[in-house]
Amino acid sequence: MTKIIKLDKDTIIGNKDFNIIAGPCAVESEEQMDRIGRFLSSIGIKILRGGAFKPRTNPNTFQGLEYEGLKILKDIKEKYGFLVVSEIMDPRDVEIGCEYIDIIQIGSRNMQNFALLKEVGSIKKPVLLKRGMSATIEEWLMAAEYIRMEGNEDIILCERGIRTFADYTRNTLDLVSVPIIKNLSEYPIIIDPSHGTGRRELILPASKAALAIGADGIIVEVHPEPSKALSDGDQSLDFNYFKELVDEIQKLKVHFD
Amino acid sequence: MTKIIKLDKDTIIGNKDFNIIAGPCAVESEEQMDRIGRFLSSIGIKILRGGAFKPRTNPNTFQGLEYEGLKILKDIKEKYGFLVVSEIMDPRDVEIGCEYIDIIQIGSRNMQNFALLKEVGSIKKPVLLKRGMSATIEEWLMAAEYIRMEGNEDIILCERGIRTFADYTRNTLDLVSVPIIKNLSEYPIIIDPSHGTGRRELILPASKAALAIGADGIIVEVHPEPSKALSDGDQSLDFNYFKELVDEIQKLKVHFD
Amino acid sequence: MTKIIKLDKDTIIGNKDFNIIAGPCAVESEEQMDRIGRFLSSIGIKILRGGAFKPRTNPNTFQGLEYEGLKILKDIKEKYGFLVVSEIMDPRDVEIGCEYIDIIQIGSRNMQNFALLKEVGSIKKPVLLKRGMSATIEEWLMAAEYIRMEGNEDIILCERGIRTFADYTRNTLDLVSVPIIKNLSEYPIIIDPSHGTGRRELILPASKAALAIGADGIIVEVHPEPSKALSDGDQSLDFNYFKELVDEIQKLKVHFD
Amino acid sequence: MTKIIKLDKDTIIGNKDFNIIAGPCAVESEEQMDRIGRFLSSIGIKILRGGAFKPRTNPNTFQGLEYEGLKILKDIKEKYGFLVVSEIMDPRDVEIGCEYIDIIQIGSRNMQNFALLKEVGSIKKPVLLKRGMSATIEEWLMAAEYIRMEGNEDIILCERGIRTFADYTRNTLDLVSVPIIKNLSEYPIIIDPSHGTGRRELILPASKAALAIGADGIIVEVHPEPSKALSDGDQSLDFNYFKELVDEIQKLKVHFD
Repeated sequence: MTKIIKLDKDTIIGNKDFNIIAGPCAVESEEQMDRIGRFLSSIGIKILRGGAFKPRTNPNTFQGLEYEGLKILKDIKEKYGFLVVSEIMDPRDVEIGCEYIDIIQIGSRNMQNFALLKEVGSIKKPVLLKRGMSATIEEWLMAAEYIRMEGNEDIILCERGIRTFADYTRNTLDLVSVPIIKNLSEYPIIIDPSHGTGRRELILPASKAALAIGADGIIVEVHPEPSKALSDGDQSLDFNYFKELVDEIQKLKVHFD
Repeated sequence: MTKIIKLDKDTIIGNKDFNIIAGPCAVESEEQMDRIGRFLSSIGIKILRGGAFKPRTNPNTFQGLEYEGLKILKDIKEKYGFLVVSEIMDPRDVEIGCEYIDIIQIGSRNMQNFALLKEVGSIKKPVLLKRGMSATIEEWLMAAEYIRMEGNEDIILCERGIRTFADYTRNTLDLVSVPIIKNLSEYPIIIDPSHGTGRRELILPASKAALAIGADGIIVEVHPEPSKALSDGDQSLDFNYFKELVDEIQKLKVHFD
Repeated sequence: MTKIIKLDKDTIIGNKDFNIIAGPCAVESEEQMDRIGRFLSSIGIKILRGGAFKPRTNPNTFQGLEYEGLKILKDIKEKYGFLVVSEIMDPRDVEIGCEYIDIIQIGSRNMQNFALLKEVGSIKKPVLLKRGMSATIEEWLMAAEYIRMEGNEDIILCERGIRTFADYTRNTLDLVSVPIIKNLSEYPIIIDPSHGTGRRELILPASKAALAIGADGIIVEVHPEPSKALSDGDQSLDFNYFKELVDEIQKLKVHFD
Repeated sequence: MTKIIKLDKDTIIGNKDFNIIAGPCAVESEEQMDRIGRFLSSIGIKILRGGAFKPRTNPNTFQGLEYEGLKILKDIKEKYGFLVVSEIMDPRDVEIGCEYIDIIQIGSRNMQNFALLKEVGSIKKPVLLKRGMSATIEEWLMAAEYIRMEGNEDIILCERGIRTFADYTRNTLDLVSVPIIKNLSEYPIIIDPSHGTGRRELILPASKAALAIGADGIIVEVHPEPSKALSDGDQSLDFNYFKELVDEIQKLKVHFD
């Protein structure tokens, strides 16, 4: 049985209501977030993603707006009534982060950052725990256990592709991890088809498969102008493309209840 | 556009009619095949799989009934009206194999056995080309090209899981290869959830995802008594389980036309 | 040209003097460390390793003695005149850690823990940066760049095996990374044959290869009674075995100057 | 104990005399082979490699000179007194191949081509069995067992790099497989640093490590003009570079007897 995580009076994760979480890779500006917020709100999206702290491989690339980004997220959240998910990378940012964010994301690179896991284990907010790039199922569930042992059981797992020899996609999306996690644990699990494939044209088919295989939702990168995105442009959907994805998923969803 | 491969007047692969190919890992005896054939025929399965030549890692394990196995396959095929798919491993067996088999399977270990590819490139039967354990998309399509260049364009690709660090499943099923192949080629592509996962309980969810992501069918291992199977027992479905899978897939199929 | 990192007046890393760093996986007790310290000191080992904070996959296993472990390390260091290398996992522990440790180790799981990298970038102690389990060469050097950009250029890289499909060893030791790193950067690089293989009998041959391929040293797990070790017993050498390794390496070393 | 494979009265594989096998990726012409033969002979190389049948990923690239290539190999072999190793890919070519070749090579792509393994198991020539791209140690030894069971025990294993996520090198050279194979079997094992790294500048350090870790030899690609090679130019050494490698290895060799 999958645990139900109640986010607010209308929004839960872990029941059969396939959640679509969306937003840009990075919070870039108030204006960018407002465009995205208005659009996503208009098509019924309840949970907004957006990175304020960005774990970039190269220290010379855009690192996110950090605290300024969190403030923008909060403004947009309040203006349009979203719940907000954003990544925290430093245990010292968890407490303040909680004032701005509804779901704290632990990124792939930090799946075994045990100091950080313990820190988010002691808060009262749900945690979105992404699978590490080369984490086994057991290591992933053990990382969740680090959080749970500190008292926080509101954990949402997120499969975002694993690292393999395959070179056509950015990662190899391990969709079969969904029924495995359902068999081994009570945590809801969502799919990140954006990082999982790294290619725009694969996001819709991967999202349909996520629904069919029993995932509790997807988290998708959306940007008003992907070609100008400060990060992850190749895997971001523009508004039209994303709208089409939502429509297709909605149509399909009724058959999986 | 996916190419349509016409197998007989009623059966094609590559249109939107999601094919379910089923049968045991290995042909073990006339009696075993007759039980399987009667059952599969009774629930409407058109294409029977069954290995006569078995590429086993260990030379001291059961290697298949070889030519005797082909004869059994042909008997069952004629008795119940199946089309039959079976693996050929030696280029010297291709010609005779064609007298018994409707679709020649090239197994993962032989995806880059170019002598064999050329041999099946010169016959008039469709070829089921399984992806190599660590083959990239490009290498897989190039292997198909070896067949096509000899004149045989009736190629069905089969994703059966790739080899990664992940250890919970036998292989990592790369479902996203389906839309990639659809974008890059005209070949139909089916999914092998039995080898792709190696675990019985994952075959139904993986099959649903295969349908949702656009595959042209699945190939599933079925055995009357999986615990007594001479190979691949852990990933074989018994008759009840397989019947349930067919029912679920049929129900879902109508929503993907 | 490889940078020379001066540790004290007698000890440097990065010249042609192949360093052997040794010690237990984890600091377990004052008594254990004293036995190890006395032994290692008696055979001329200058740099002692020992984990106080242990990044264990499973939160229910031994997590290290933490601050008590650091104190034991310092006692042994002073008693026998060692330089000490130990892992820090939490950016909040870096400052205090520097009072006890001569070389701060960043473990594989934290290779892209950018908050931690920035923190050790601002200290005056050398950093031993282990390669992440599935880090490419570029990602590894970029992680070093996070440290260097904060002002700390005393970085020692450590190859400790990467995660692959191979299942006979704990990891696949990528010895060829040594000449690659030498070509691409100025950082000294050492090999960890203990984690890199996970099997006692492979540590000596892997160490010889490390020397031959140009590494600046090795870091080896040694325990007085490996079968009683609280962690990594299978890959720890006992005193006799380790003494033999040191002797063999010393004999070989003269031919590589 | 490693088995000794006697190739002729002066040449054996499997004792402590580290063999250097060399030659071009592909036999391209009589003139090319004569240049290479004269050079290799002049510096004391005893075993010549050269591909007549080339297993190329892409069917539209150079496939080797096939039987013409074998004839050229035999001419050069007789002119300069070499032993010759060359790949056979089709079981139907094994018998004729034996008239031209002293050591039959089974390539990586065919490590589990069981029809071919059985065929070379029934001949009286040594077999060089390359490890498959994603073969475990067990699968590799089982492939050798297919040969041995047919009566041919003169098997030389060759590690040539495995397929991993790592992208700086063509493959990840698993040098540690050498002591593993020595522990688990009696077969001699050589290293292929050319395919194992795919980069010229890494071949010498990898060869030194091969010697230090206990390999029975190396097989190296040499070409008079690597930039004009019809295949594998990037990893081929020119004559000067190769001469330097031989000199360095000879100097080092005396310390490993």
